[in-house]
Amino acid sequence: MSSASAAERPGRTMASEMAEQPAVLRRILEEGAPRIFATAQAIAARSPRFVLLTARGTSDHAALYAKYLLEIQLGLPCGLTSMSTTTAYSARPVFRDVLVITVSQSGGSPDLVASTRAAREAGAITLAVTNNPDSPLAAVSEHHIDVLAGPEKALPATKTYTASLLALYLLVQGLQSVDGTAAARPVVDLAGEVIGRGAEVRRLASRYRFAERMVVTSRGYGYPTAKEAALKLMETSYIPALAYSGADLLHGPLAMVDNISPVIAVVTSGCGGEALQPVLDRLRGRGADLFVVGPGPQVDAASSGFVLPTEGVLEELQPILEILPLQLLAYEITLARGQDPDAPRALAKVTQTR
Amino acid sequence: MSSASAAERPGRTMASEMAEQPAVLRRILEEGAPRIFATAQAIAARSPRFVLLTARGTSDHAALYAKYLLEIQLGLPCGLTSMSTTTAYSARPVFRDVLVITVSQSGGSPDLVASTRAAREAGAITLAVTNNPDSPLAAVSEHHIDVLAGPEKALPATKTYTASLLALYLLVQGLQSVDGTAAARPVVDLAGEVIGRGAEVRRLASRYRFAERMVVTSRGYGYPTAKEAALKLMETSYIPALAYSGADLLHGPLAMVDNISPVIAVVTSGCGGEALQPVLDRLRGRGADLFVVGPGPQVDAASSGFVLPTEGVLEELQPILEILPLQLLAYEITLARGQDPDAPRALAKVTQTR
Repeated sequence: MSSASAAERPGRTMASEMAEQPAVLRRILEEGAPRIFATAQAIAARSPRFVLLTARGTSDHAALYAKYLLEIQLGLPCGLTSMSTTTAYSARPVFRDVLVITVSQSGGSPDLVASTRAAREAGAITLAVTNNPDSPLAAVSEHHIDVLAGPEKALPATKTYTASLLALYLLVQGLQSVDGTAAARPVVDLAGEVIGRGAEVRRLASRYRFAERMVVTSRGYGYPTAKEAALKLMETSYIPALAYSGADLLHGPLAMVDNISPVIAVVTSGCGGEALQPVLDRLRGRGADLFVVGPGPQVDAASSGFVLPTEGVLEELQPILEILPLQLLAYEITLARGQDPDAPRALAKVTQTR
Repeated sequence: MSSASAAERPGRTMASEMAEQPAVLRRILEEGAPRIFATAQAIAARSPRFVLLTARGTSDHAALYAKYLLEIQLGLPCGLTSMSTTTAYSARPVFRDVLVITVSQSGGSPDLVASTRAAREAGAITLAVTNNPDSPLAAVSEHHIDVLAGPEKALPATKTYTASLLALYLLVQGLQSVDGTAAARPVVDLAGEVIGRGAEVRRLASRYRFAERMVVTSRGYGYPTAKEAALKLMETSYIPALAYSGADLLHGPLAMVDNISPVIAVVTSGCGGEALQPVLDRLRGRGADLFVVGPGPQVDAASSGFVLPTEGVLEELQPILEILPLQLLAYEITLARGQDPDAPRALAKVTQTR
């Protein structure tokens, strides 16, 4: 294929950015890790007692991943910021001993900048995690972590998401004075392996060519993956995709799942996957069409799925791999519908919410 | 109509529980308020510095409402609990100076009980807000607030939601040593007025008889209403309904809104409604079918809507009124589709998630 025709191919930018992910992950481990560790140590010296995470869209799902890590590994009470409390209602929060982590690919959303500035003025320890060290968000924050993903041009964020996950993983290890690079290393090659299975995902995607809605579920560390997969599906293919933790799914939305609402389940190898088991059983009992991203036996027991290689990968690092086949799935479904994943209707790369 | 035929009418239980709401609100103000104030004072004496809210389903939306109140009025950093961190991952949180508020209609979900017990053992000040003072959740919590809604039998929660909102409002006022009953009193009669407009909502519902999906949006205090309305629509009518804060809607899901995805916007009179204005303009610019619950001029500028009476009602109390026409809407759409709102598929009243 000539480069001219490649340049015109729908989804070309998203495809190339998805393919960069193994290299980005490697770059973070090889070049970014020491500075992330030093930043973590500087923050740990301040002994934060509570953590607030601030983000929107895809970055909000990376923030949720960090919330699980911080709560499970450090026992720190965490919250996700309701941004309008400061931007619309001018709340005056008391932020002594509070670490505020703001995650943003661009570092440019005015509401994130305003909210982070307000947090710093109110006494918080502020940390920005962005893909742009020259951004206004990096400038207003006391600390900054660069996720080193390189320019992201496709409107659906892919490589900045997995880069943010890995950077946040290393940060939380650093807060415990642990160097997380060795544990994370196996993820790089496995990510390359998963990304190389695009043709397999293309065949799987045909099943959802005419889906009118989808439900995505998981528990624990996999839940941010479910939320991000739902967003990716919606913003590329426009299929309404609803993400629920497995427990919440049983509290109401299950009524909506039937044989015309396919369910995607993200089954981590570990406690989260085990906690999801009763939900999977219930879904199977209802005859739901179930697509599993997870271990082979779980995929075999489902209607369809993607066997995720996770050998040697801690449960808390699996989210970096889990999202990859789901990015590919959103991409392939969108192409199959004759739409362009690079150019969703109505989306701007830096969202000017205030 | 004979009482026998009334007993068999689909949705009869949900209808009668929706209709009880003004009386329940009055009961809270007249009978419940003094004890809520005393509980709030006992908690305030402990000077909590951080608040975690724990809940699922409808109660989670009441918890989110409390989060806005606590952040805006008290400046307290707040978070919503990711329950699996303790139930699936056995995290050992450090909860000194932390107030943990668990909201549950039944007070019976095992995971809520386990999570609250763990929080108390970890040093948290624990408060349960339930509709059952004899529940296991009330028993394991240091403090308990009874929302006094009386037995709720319909599977979709309605009166326990508005009762929880009012109880939480009074609690947060009490934490500031304020008696909130006078400010809340106008809500009772206005709630009666809104509930009396069922026939109007029935006419409005016909527009959505064949909707395949819906988007619900708001900002600030109205955002919990948007989330609760989406859940109500899904669990009764099975229409996939996606709730987004106005700001998040612009970060991706807007691509999914077009002339076949009707949008419901909850427009509070106050800062939240003002912050939503650019989102409303953008939706109108895209030709979205827009149903507004809010002030008359906003409804006039939309495709359809319900003019909400809020004279003399503070913005932070409007959520108690906003949800009422949306409960009615979910109910009427469900009836119009020939389904029974009292008996959604697959739902159990006390969800046994662990």
